[in-house]
Amino acid sequence: MKIAILPGDGIGPEITAQAVKVLNALGESFELESADVGGAGYAAHGHPLPQGTLALAKAADAVLFGAVGDYKYDSLERALRPEQAILGLRKELGLFANLRPAILYPELAGASTLKPEVVSGLDILIIRELTGDIYFGKPRGVRECPDGPFAGQREGFDTMRYAEGEIRRIAHVAFQAARKRDRRVTSVDKANVLETFQFWRDIVTDVHKEYQDVELEHMYVDNAAMQLVRAPKKFDVIVTGNMFGDILSDAAAMLTGSIGMLPSASLDANNKGLYEPSHGSAPDIAGKGIANPLATILSAAMMLRFSLGKAEQADRIENAVKKVLAQGLRTPDIYEDGTTKVGTEQMGDAVVNALG
Amino acid sequence: MKIAILPGDGIGPEITAQAVKVLNALGESFELESADVGGAGYAAHGHPLPQGTLALAKAADAVLFGAVGDYKYDSLERALRPEQAILGLRKELGLFANLRPAILYPELAGASTLKPEVVSGLDILIIRELTGDIYFGKPRGVRECPDGPFAGQREGFDTMRYAEGEIRRIAHVAFQAARKRDRRVTSVDKANVLETFQFWRDIVTDVHKEYQDVELEHMYVDNAAMQLVRAPKKFDVIVTGNMFGDILSDAAAMLTGSIGMLPSASLDANNKGLYEPSHGSAPDIAGKGIANPLATILSAAMMLRFSLGKAEQADRIENAVKKVLAQGLRTPDIYEDGTTKVGTEQMGDAVVNALG
Ligand SMILES: CC(C)[C@H](C(=O)O)[C@@H](O)C(=O)O
Ligand SMILES: CC(C)[C@H](C(=O)O)[C@@H](O)C(=O)O
Repeated sequence: MKIAILPGDGIGPEITAQAVKVLNALGESFELESADVGGAGYAAHGHPLPQGTLALAKAADAVLFGAVGDYKYDSLERALRPEQAILGLRKELGLFANLRPAILYPELAGASTLKPEVVSGLDILIIRELTGDIYFGKPRGVRECPDGPFAGQREGFDTMRYAEGEIRRIAHVAFQAARKRDRRVTSVDKANVLETFQFWRDIVTDVHKEYQDVELEHMYVDNAAMQLVRAPKKFDVIVTGNMFGDILSDAAAMLTGSIGMLPSASLDANNKGLYEPSHGSAPDIAGKGIANPLATILSAAMMLRFSLGKAEQADRIENAVKKVLAQGLRTPDIYEDGTTKVGTEQMGDAVVNALG
Repeated sequence: MKIAILPGDGIGPEITAQAVKVLNALGESFELESADVGGAGYAAHGHPLPQGTLALAKAADAVLFGAVGDYKYDSLERALRPEQAILGLRKELGLFANLRPAILYPELAGASTLKPEVVSGLDILIIRELTGDIYFGKPRGVRECPDGPFAGQREGFDTMRYAEGEIRRIAHVAFQAARKRDRRVTSVDKANVLETFQFWRDIVTDVHKEYQDVELEHMYVDNAAMQLVRAPKKFDVIVTGNMFGDILSDAAAMLTGSIGMLPSASLDANNKGLYEPSHGSAPDIAGKGIANPLATILSAAMMLRFSLGKAEQADRIENAVKKVLAQGLRTPDIYEDGTTKVGTEQMGDAVVNALG
């Protein structure tokens, strides 16, 4: 089985190295191959998603991705900026289903800005559609405003859109995921304002007929943002579009106060996937050896479970992470009085040792 | 001075009645005239924004709005549903600038789901553009998907758009508001993905040249959603588009845990405005006499300040509200042990008595 390793920028290389160490310690015979992506791709090959990197990702059975972005690429034109790599990979690999668990480990409840009783034991799964919506819709650009009070001025514009089949397939992913959990799905939309999301609501309602054992609730996105702050534990699975999912999944991750712990999976129709931590490239702490590698290590576990058919190895890694937390080891981002502060490598080593 | 009173549905009539009582107690000679809106408009005249109601709102110097929406109108077609009234009023009256303070009163810090140190003393002003963006952009609807892997299927679609002049005028509102506060503006966009919001960022940057005494920061919307949870007190003024503002202003309101306290203003180019509480119509508690009227009373204070040139009367009301909180009076939504539970009318009476 071939795994493409795309470390990227900032802390990406450091944290990915720890996940690779853990993968290598499992005793499986994975073929790992690395390539440049993001700013590193631009620096080496003039493009954030170099052709060789894309080819490797396409040929691999799964992709382990670090993070992209650095201040030094901020002044590049948009098409060459690091984050275009991630948009390009999603589109080219057809990774339409983004799974982002927001889980609060009991040992880390203190790290949250929310009161412990509001978040302790939090376990939500956010499923974000990842290849449609206003992210890729056309036409888009800057044009002359065609009518209304601003006619003749320049205007920026984009197209939001969802086709029936796109909504159906992500709804199926959500209902099936809910069957392995608490069997409740909240579909988040803005059906009271947007045609796209009235249509979304109609289709999700229709798909739900095949899943009568799962409870379906529709919620407006503004209300969902409120309920995530008010009573996040009431959610089980949240399914939503690309744009709303971008906002809500980050808000949900931050509820835990430990975004350095949260993995993600982006899957295609055949469960091939790209796996990456939910946090960014944190260029301000890059190279200091203090970044938390656990989100990337847990992303590798998701990869074993969803794309490589190795659920037992995934369990081993997840249990090892729980063990190091129980041992009191903490990188600085999750450090609290009474625990033991460790660096990126030490944390990776500790997980390897805890694999058993 | 003529004020249109639009009580609406659910708790709307009860809470508006308290604000009217307070206005009448000020000793000014306002001309108040009421009309049906939302579900009440549909029930009485077959439309959520009856022509007479719109004419009254247009003729008035300011509009005091309760809330709209009730389960019983959920099955109406979209064009007749209560929330169309509020969209129609915004568009017809040109109310492009929505001002939503998120303030946490010291006495109510316990009501928040966030830790007291994270939110106590919170004082953010969210300025949401209210007549542009994907809310009103055309074309929109359901059509046959023209191309790509879903060609031929039905698709829902909408148009996001902002013209230069629309961005300029809301940016001016934000920078001017910041001058009366801590002189910091965070402009929230998604310039890394959307053409509309790269354009937004460029124009806001340009307008900022006229306000070099104000600090401007640009932030992506997903990051803004995280920072609101992580460290909300770092913000002063947030300015953003209609869609992102809908989500972020509700999230920010919920941070306080006391959305029953938060007023809002929606202004046109001449400071004529519509004023309404930030919360909804809460049909489940309508008619029980337990709704919190303070957000509506504080909305009336904003109306006196922004549209009616009566800043001193606005101060009187705001001070009276602080006084009743200090007296320990609480409606059930903000009640805590050791305080005195009161109903909607008692709370309104207490504010009248505290006017001094
Ligand atoms: C970097 C950016 C294009 C991306 C997105 O908006 O999808 C990021 O925020 C994410 O959520 O992965
Ligand atoms: C009712 C709805 C159309 C409205 C909006 O989305 O603007 C509401 O959520 C608001 O924020 O006033």
